[in-house]
Amino acid sequence: MTNTQVTLIQIDNYGPWTVTPEPRREVDLQTLQSRLYADLSQLFGNREGYVFFSRFDNMIAVTNGLDMDAHALIQESVGNRYPVTVSLSVAVDPNPVDALGLATSRLQDAGSAQDRTRREILRGESLTESMRTEDDVQIAHFDVNDATDRYTDKLNEFDTFIHIEQGYAELMRYMRMAHDSLSFFVGGDNVISVCSSIGRSEYADAVEHVQDAVGVDLKVGVGRNRSVQAAGMMAKHALEQCREDETAVELGW
Amino acid sequence: MTNTQVTLIQIDNYGPWTVTPEPRREVDLQTLQSRLYADLSQLFGNREGYVFFSRFDNMIAVTNGLDMDAHALIQESVGNRYPVTVSLSVAVDPNPVDALGLATSRLQDAGSAQDRTRREILRGESLTESMRTEDDVQIAHFDVNDATDRYTDKLNEFDTFIHIEQGYAELMRYMRMAHDSLSFFVGGDNVISVCSSIGRSEYADAVEHVQDAVGVDLKVGVGRNRSVQAAGMMAKHALEQCREDETAVELGW
Amino acid sequence: MTNTQVTLIQIDNYGPWTVTPEPRREVDLQTLQSRLYADLSQLFGNREGYVFFSRFDNMIAVTNGLDMDAHALIQESVGNRYPVTVSLSVAVDPNPVDALGLATSRLQDAGSAQDRTRREILRGESLTESMRTEDDVQIAHFDVNDATDRYTDKLNEFDTFIHIEQGYAELMRYMRMAHDSLSFFVGGDNVISVCSSIGRSEYADAVEHVQDAVGVDLKVGVGRNRSVQAAGMMAKHALEQCREDETAVELGW
Amino acid sequence: MTNTQVTLIQIDNYGPWTVTPEPRREVDLQTLQSRLYADLSQLFGNREGYVFFSRFDNMIAVTNGLDMDAHALIQESVGNRYPVTVSLSVAVDPNPVDALGLATSRLQDAGSAQDRTRREILRGESLTESMRTEDDVQIAHFDVNDATDRYTDKLNEFDTFIHIEQGYAELMRYMRMAHDSLSFFVGGDNVISVCSSIGRSEYADAVEHVQDAVGVDLKVGVGRNRSVQAAGMMAKHALEQCREDETAVELGW
Repeated sequence: MTNTQVTLIQIDNYGPWTVTPEPRREVDLQTLQSRLYADLSQLFGNREGYVFFSRFDNMIAVTNGLDMDAHALIQESVGNRYPVTVSLSVAVDPNPVDALGLATSRLQDAGSAQDRTRREILRGESLTESMRTEDDVQIAHFDVNDATDRYTDKLNEFDTFIHIEQGYAELMRYMRMAHDSLSFFVGGDNVISVCSSIGRSEYADAVEHVQDAVGVDLKVGVGRNRSVQAAGMMAKHALEQCREDETAVELGW
Repeated sequence: MTNTQVTLIQIDNYGPWTVTPEPRREVDLQTLQSRLYADLSQLFGNREGYVFFSRFDNMIAVTNGLDMDAHALIQESVGNRYPVTVSLSVAVDPNPVDALGLATSRLQDAGSAQDRTRREILRGESLTESMRTEDDVQIAHFDVNDATDRYTDKLNEFDTFIHIEQGYAELMRYMRMAHDSLSFFVGGDNVISVCSSIGRSEYADAVEHVQDAVGVDLKVGVGRNRSVQAAGMMAKHALEQCREDETAVELGW
Repeated sequence: MTNTQVTLIQIDNYGPWTVTPEPRREVDLQTLQSRLYADLSQLFGNREGYVFFSRFDNMIAVTNGLDMDAHALIQESVGNRYPVTVSLSVAVDPNPVDALGLATSRLQDAGSAQDRTRREILRGESLTESMRTEDDVQIAHFDVNDATDRYTDKLNEFDTFIHIEQGYAELMRYMRMAHDSLSFFVGGDNVISVCSSIGRSEYADAVEHVQDAVGVDLKVGVGRNRSVQAAGMMAKHALEQCREDETAVELGW
Repeated sequence: MTNTQVTLIQIDNYGPWTVTPEPRREVDLQTLQSRLYADLSQLFGNREGYVFFSRFDNMIAVTNGLDMDAHALIQESVGNRYPVTVSLSVAVDPNPVDALGLATSRLQDAGSAQDRTRREILRGESLTESMRTEDDVQIAHFDVNDATDRYTDKLNEFDTFIHIEQGYAELMRYMRMAHDSLSFFVGGDNVISVCSSIGRSEYADAVEHVQDAVGVDLKVGVGRNRSVQAAGMMAKHALEQCREDETAVELGW
């Protein structure tokens, strides 16, 4: 059974900051957001975590293996190097959606995302080492079949983007509703899902659903391990297996 | 009438590179992609352009005011500092979708996105200074009404994200089909559209369509100018006007 | 005759900030400083300028071709993306040392580097386009002969570093005193000097002086142009010429 | 007694790369170097290490607490994100100069810094956890007395820089020759020394030597701990103590 540790990262009072005293230059905001995400990717990723950019002002990380001290260090490092601060809320649950739900409500209890006085909240609890198992994190890595041939090399790039995006929008919604999983677009034609302990048939179902609903043809490799990085790497190898064998679902274990 | 200069930025042979010789660590790929985007944001943005991350391996920029030499310098700077190279294709058209279509097909003619020998293509043509007018670029800045109150401070962050994402997916598709515009999520609850010369009623129509289709409640400020940055800043101020006056559409001119 | 435009970049109230409320983590300060320098390198460099890191909290740029609006944009962009702000002071003089002296005193007149209320000063004046000539900027690029063979591949790296550093310390002092030039270590075994209109014999004299004083054996390529980047690139090519012809001084014009 | 673990970081074949096929733009090289340093600062610094930029193409890190796997991960992350690769050589010795000497010769044995085929060497050995003690790392943090009042706010910035630089050049040489310590300029008027187990009188001697030799007036705080970060932070607090008590040397333990 999975036991996913999820961290919600929220930039404190970001919306108001972007328009105070006047709206700030968009290119600077874009640079700030994407560099903060890149930094967090390294800060969490140099331990054993993954961060997903999701909305950029709210990012979601899978952090099995990082304790609260590691979180505090990351929070301090951001505060030392950016004009904004971040709050971090951590929770653990077999179900990734519930873990994030708990992390979210813990942060909401501390005050609004746009409360000027709520800064650098650090809440929640991390998995103790003795509780960790080899099944804690299950990761699925989806991509679009023949995306380069069918889309990138043929269509107007925006129409390619629409296809990928519609596929993602459908997948994220379906995986959350039907299978309690958190799915994130990670660039190109790739989506990574943080899953509960679901099996081959549920993945086949999701692939079929997206095909039926929006006509986007996916395949998926799945990995499972004690950390998100090990599980994610297993999922990537499983996805390579799909490519070689022309299969739609491969489990890496 | 608008006359939008669009640049398609494509990382050369990126997909194969990410899995050669073995799949590379996801956190490094995420860092690479988001830093490349941040750099391009500054490189285009320190002149008069905007870049949108769209799929990260394919990015779309609005570049009125940047000539081909400026593009060549950006391409060289990326090649000097990253393990990957980028191809750039530039086109101009009154209709932003057609400009991007032309830029895309020019690059497709040079070879596949996954052709190992197709590197650092630089194609197309930029607007001459004498052709530029005050109406060349029209930008709409959308956001979600009361997103913090209704979503961020209330729901599981993933459900907030689903709401925002479904709103964006619907808006991007509708604006492209009905109004020949290119729409990009830019973080938080914000979407920026690169538009042709459409008016108040078309924006009201789009807001209404998204409300009807997926129940997400938008407002929009619109700007117009000779560069995307000036137009985008006017749009931001118009959006602030919406906020103050509780209106759904404000034109900044 | 040269006519060098120099910009002094000073982080506002930086010393006190680094220890308030407690001393900040050194690795974060180092990251902040080097990224700010990297950003300024691109911001000035995407126009026609060079920035030298010198003390990191005070950096020196050669900015022929950048007007005060370009400076204001750079200042705003830093303010939008860093927890610190910068003041910029610009001056022009045939003599680079005097240009920097004027820029420095203009900033000193505005208040102390550690005055908490002195923020984002922007002072001075830039060269008008009509005043610019092909002789405005003269750049010398020095390196150490056979540094890899003699030092890097043989000695303890710290002893290599001491040799390079003693060579640099002597060169910077001599070029400033004897030849009114500003010299900056730029990594490896390289030093770049911003010079007044000096000739072959002055460079030969400097190379000989450093050899005599500290036993470090230099060569130098020199370039001259209307911008620092064009002059600097000419200097690099002249230095390659030294390498091929085993000469100590090459003028690129 | 100290037991310092030192890592030599060398960019592979960097000199030739910077001029192949033509000399690359200096601003891009500067950006590349300083961002690589910033990244390494975070990668080592998010564990327990410090990196000093020294010559940028050769950097020196103190890495007590980082094992060879941590080094391998850092090496892989750089290889995934930069157009250049790095070699890493690790050694441990009570004497920091000897530790670096051993690390250097291990790397030299693997081939020249400019050997095109020598890439991503990873050599040496790290301290086992059981060998580590509270005295392993001794760090001294020097700064210049009243630098802002005496120099920054009064002199031409280049003359300030010359004063600081001459002080540093003298200190680095003296601390290496007389006290087996590695000293690095870290910006502003700050120098950090990685020391063997020397005491108050040796620091007083160094301060006096620099005053006599080049007239630069220093003070120094010293820390000692099992990691460089803990020792460095103790040194910073000791330096604050010097400032308050107007003393020249403070030991933090």
